[in-house]
Amino acid sequence: MTDIARILAAADRLKGQIRRTPLLSSPFLDEIAGRRVLVKAECLQHTGSFKARGGWSAVSALPDEVRARGVIAFSSGNHAQGVAAAAKAFGIPAVIIMPEDAPALKIANTRALGAEVVLYDRKGGGSREAIGAELSAARGLTLIRPYDEPEVIAGQGTCGLEIAEQAAEMGVTSGDVVVCCGGGGLTSGIALALEAKAPGLRVRPAEPAGFDDTARSLAAGERLSNAAPSGSICDAIVTPAPGEITFPILQRLAGPGLVVSDDEALQAMALAFTRLKLVIEPGGAVALAACLFRRDQITGDTVICTASGGNVDAALFAEALTRFGDA
Amino acid sequence: MTDIARILAAADRLKGQIRRTPLLSSPFLDEIAGRRVLVKAECLQHTGSFKARGGWSAVSALPDEVRARGVIAFSSGNHAQGVAAAAKAFGIPAVIIMPEDAPALKIANTRALGAEVVLYDRKGGGSREAIGAELSAARGLTLIRPYDEPEVIAGQGTCGLEIAEQAAEMGVTSGDVVVCCGGGGLTSGIALALEAKAPGLRVRPAEPAGFDDTARSLAAGERLSNAAPSGSICDAIVTPAPGEITFPILQRLAGPGLVVSDDEALQAMALAFTRLKLVIEPGGAVALAACLFRRDQITGDTVICTASGGNVDAALFAEALTRFGDA
Repeated sequence: MTDIARILAAADRLKGQIRRTPLLSSPFLDEIAGRRVLVKAECLQHTGSFKARGGWSAVSALPDEVRARGVIAFSSGNHAQGVAAAAKAFGIPAVIIMPEDAPALKIANTRALGAEVVLYDRKGGGSREAIGAELSAARGLTLIRPYDEPEVIAGQGTCGLEIAEQAAEMGVTSGDVVVCCGGGGLTSGIALALEAKAPGLRVRPAEPAGFDDTARSLAAGERLSNAAPSGSICDAIVTPAPGEITFPILQRLAGPGLVVSDDEALQAMALAFTRLKLVIEPGGAVALAACLFRRDQITGDTVICTASGGNVDAALFAEALTRFGDA
Repeated sequence: MTDIARILAAADRLKGQIRRTPLLSSPFLDEIAGRRVLVKAECLQHTGSFKARGGWSAVSALPDEVRARGVIAFSSGNHAQGVAAAAKAFGIPAVIIMPEDAPALKIANTRALGAEVVLYDRKGGGSREAIGAELSAARGLTLIRPYDEPEVIAGQGTCGLEIAEQAAEMGVTSGDVVVCCGGGGLTSGIALALEAKAPGLRVRPAEPAGFDDTARSLAAGERLSNAAPSGSICDAIVTPAPGEITFPILQRLAGPGLVVSDDEALQAMALAFTRLKLVIEPGGAVALAACLFRRDQITGDTVICTASGGNVDAALFAEALTRFGDA
């Protein structure tokens, strides 16, 4: 069970290991959004995404003798790098199971961080969970789940602690906090932190069209799956369904969900390039896209959103600039 | 005369108006550079460059009745936006004289910030100084020079105060601080701040090949000019010669200079994209390029560099990614 005490304990362990990322803004974005937009730049986090928080939190929370045997994770890329970086810092083995169609940059970075990468065929219906369980048992590795894992949620929750502090410094005490949502680790972690530290701020999950399992699940009151296992450029936040642990937290504290198209995510990336000088990946841009292009579904004078990762291949980023640059 | 007292006074006036930009790093960049590289991300500053510091400092230092008549500046773009943003905040008129071949984004942003933009023909030998003096006299506007202006240098010096603080927090007390250098406002301001607050850190100006007036002037012991008025993609830091006020400061506190090619600046931009998730313009990337590609001319275990601006057109950034992306 993740609660504020566990998040605060994670924040203690993360001190000096994790960046307090800035909350950025631009008058040009405010004009498009019709309100002030504050962007939590987690793409500037170590490993290029907020996943470094959860990875460090989970690895650092293990008992010494368990941690020494090593860790294993399945991930389309950002969780992989977060876990691999923490494992490297602790000098322990890390095995990462990645879909073979993950962005080349994420696979290369995970290997460069010293992890052993095992690729599987996502489109062929391969189950990363089954592969993970088997390897975990065979080698005595501890499986670090990407979101349904209390210490991972606690680590992501430290991002929420920072948002609460930074919002207070800027005089923002109420409004929506739009969070890029895959399995819900970041979204639920931030929601728990804000419940304790900034109860006037409400979390709104943002997802890509076709992979809006969380929005539909929140509306239905039960966990629903996506129709397809992949097919959005927002690879970082494409998950089969909301998590078992994360969903009840979201039901209690978050919603309704916001949904944007892949093209709107690309356009938000181009605007973040021009106006914030940030590199954001598609899955990390859906929250900003929701702020910019779903203004009627958002309330308040100020909206906060996460730019949760920046691990995008150069070719796709260049495409976003070519199609939507100088917008 | 700019001294540490004037820089500290500027820092007081800038409080709440200017971002304390982060000092970022990546193990992948450290490996290329052969030492730890800490990047002061001034591209994340308001208006997309450090020039917001000097603009605010100079405009806020004017007596009320003088400021009310308005200000005028000549700039290839970043100083323009810095002055225009400050003028807008104070609700006073701003006239900006820009070369007609300045990046379209910089011209558009300056206009969007409410300034009146006057274009001149840089290649045809037009003198922006003459145009500035004439308009200034005719309308009672105060000319805010881009670097040879004590309050501007003091404003840029606040970046040096932050570098001194952040370096101390990270345990860095000696080594080189490589600064993107045009007329020398940022370079001399940082040098003065470090002299007082972190005397073990030494400023090294970085410039593009063919426009290395500061490096050559420091070596010669006198102010030398560049052969051509323009012709580098590093438009932000192409100036005719070191400043009258800034050069003596650099002679006393900085050097020797470092020189990189335009292609090396583009490659540094691509690496900052991949490894730091930052958008840097060519002129803002020469210091990082010097850290990465002139390692034998730099000393110490850690080097700090400025990423001084991010106002680059999408087409040029896409070119950098196409040529040097996924490097």
